[in-house]
Amino acid sequence: MNIRPLYDRVVVRRKEEEATSAGGIILSGSAKEKPNQGEVVAVGEGKVLDNGEVRALSVKVGDQIIFGPYAGNNTVNVDGEELIIMSEGEIFGVIA
Amino acid sequence: MNIRPLYDRVVVRRKEEEATSAGGIILSGSAKEKPNQGEVVAVGEGKVLDNGEVRALSVKVGDQIIFGPYAGNNTVNVDGEELIIMSEGEIFGVIA
Amino acid sequence: MNIRPLYDRVVVRRKEEEATSAGGIILSGSAKEKPNQGEVVAVGEGKVLDNGEVRALSVKVGDQIIFGPYAGNNTVNVDGEELIIMSEGEIFGVIA
Amino acid sequence: MNIRPLYDRVVVRRKEEEATSAGGIILSGSAKEKPNQGEVVAVGEGKVLDNGEVRALSVKVGDQIIFGPYAGNNTVNVDGEELIIMSEGEIFGVIA
Amino acid sequence: MNIRPLYDRVVVRRKEEEATSAGGIILSGSAKEKPNQGEVVAVGEGKVLDNGEVRALSVKVGDQIIFGPYAGNNTVNVDGEELIIMSEGEIFGVIA
Amino acid sequence: MNIRPLYDRVVVRRKEEEATSAGGIILSGSAKEKPNQGEVVAVGEGKVLDNGEVRALSVKVGDQIIFGPYAGNNTVNVDGEELIIMSEGEIFGVIA
Amino acid sequence: MNIRPLYDRVVVRRKEEEATSAGGIILSGSAKEKPNQGEVVAVGEGKVLDNGEVRALSVKVGDQIIFGPYAGNNTVNVDGEELIIMSEGEIFGVIA
Repeated sequence: MNIRPLYDRVVVRRKEEEATSAGGIILSGSAKEKPNQGEVVAVGEGKVLDNGEVRALSVKVGDQIIFGPYAGNNTVNVDGEELIIMSEGEIFGVIA
Repeated sequence: MNIRPLYDRVVVRRKEEEATSAGGIILSGSAKEKPNQGEVVAVGEGKVLDNGEVRALSVKVGDQIIFGPYAGNNTVNVDGEELIIMSEGEIFGVIA
Repeated sequence: MNIRPLYDRVVVRRKEEEATSAGGIILSGSAKEKPNQGEVVAVGEGKVLDNGEVRALSVKVGDQIIFGPYAGNNTVNVDGEELIIMSEGEIFGVIA
Repeated sequence: MNIRPLYDRVVVRRKEEEATSAGGIILSGSAKEKPNQGEVVAVGEGKVLDNGEVRALSVKVGDQIIFGPYAGNNTVNVDGEELIIMSEGEIFGVIA
Repeated sequence: MNIRPLYDRVVVRRKEEEATSAGGIILSGSAKEKPNQGEVVAVGEGKVLDNGEVRALSVKVGDQIIFGPYAGNNTVNVDGEELIIMSEGEIFGVIA
Repeated sequence: MNIRPLYDRVVVRRKEEEATSAGGIILSGSAKEKPNQGEVVAVGEGKVLDNGEVRALSVKVGDQIIFGPYAGNNTVNVDGEELIIMSEGEIFGVIA
Repeated sequence: MNIRPLYDRVVVRRKEEEATSAGGIILSGSAKEKPNQGEVVAVGEGKVLDNGEVRALSVKVGDQIIFGPYAGNNTVNVDGEELIIMSEGEIFGVIA
């Protein structure tokens, strides 16, 4: 069972909590409880611009991303697993 | 008796409450009382963009959708059944 | 004596209050006192878009409509009858 | 002594208070003290749209209008008479 | 010593306070202490529209204007005289 | 050591405090402690408009300017001197 | 391990705290605890304008920048080092 997000929305599997290792990337700052990092599992068809053009998203399935402190609020249980639905604008960057 | 929603509005039949089964999709987070999931029963003619173009909606009648926590506030009783009227922008995704 | 509403405004005669019958459509939710349903009695010339184009409204005189909970606040007494003036954007849908 | 309102502004002479007669139009609702009705005595040159175009107003001098509950706040004394200056967007409709 | 206001800003010399005479124009309403009326002494080069076009202002030097109740807050002392700097959008109209 | 401000930002050296002389320009009103006047020492490359065009600023290095009461909040110490960084939109006018 | 910021976002390594030296640039004002200065270590692909065009950023990797008082809130630990992710609009200027 899958979710097709609409427009500029993205479905993200949050990275499991872990101790901070030397080489890990852990978001600090205003939201420290859970790692604000995860993997993109589905992306929308694109963002509709003011001129009617649909612009494909910059992230793709499989990308490891870092997201903002409030991006993790909307979660969905899919087959017993909790996933996050966020707008691409809430994603800070992709881990390269 | 039917409702034709205007522009980018959508009429949704909310999924009945149920116990969380292993394969079900239940929205958790800020609104846990009722499942924020349902079936699209009518869609508007499309969203009017700034340039005057009318863009058809991305969801269609019969789609099983997940919607945001505040999308279920405007309800209508049609022939004794409670339906929800929301904007397409309040829909997170379609269950595929 | 009639009112010609400006631009995207619409004049609506509210449906009289009634007991909820099996086949009736009664808006529930945040505004339950009066039925948020009525008949369009006059429509504006259209909405002025950013590009200067005037877009005709989607509703027409005689349509039975459902409107949002705050759409009924601006009322006018015309020949002893109370009518509502609202923007088309406050209309949820047309009863078909 | 006259006022030439700028752009989409309109100068309105408020209708005198009166008892509600059967055929009169009295705005009820959130502002009941004074009739929110009046006559247009001067109109601006038009509204400047985003594309630089100036769009002439829809109301003209002599129109009997109904305006919103907060439209009457900015008043001017011209030759001893109190007049209202409002934007055309605060006008609900024209009495036909 | 003069001020060249930027873009859509205007420099205004406020009319001196006076008793209300029969033929005078005094702004009443929310700001009664000082007359919200004055003479334009300098105008900016014009307002920059979204499309990059610069649109010349509608008021010109020497115009006697009426302005909104909050337009008089930013004052400047030039050679011992207090002048007001406001945006043209805060001007209600020109006395003709 | 210099600062190149980005886009529509401007670096300003605030005029030193002084007693109000007959020919001086002192901003009065809501911010009286320090003179809201200064000299432009660096300007950005221009403002990016919605259509992608970069519009050069209206002020230039050396201009004596008057700025709004909140424009002086962001200060930088450069080689021991405090300078202000503001957007051009916070500048009221140029002293001519 | 690197981060590729999205769109108009920038990754910044904050300058270490130091005593204020005569030739140093220290941001004073509303945020005095840490220097609001740093080095750009990664830039996004550009800002998407309303017309769909992607505009490359004005800052580049290696630039020494000054940023606004609230720009340092979103930090990320990369290989044990704390970095800041901000939008380019939060950057005041580049040290030349």
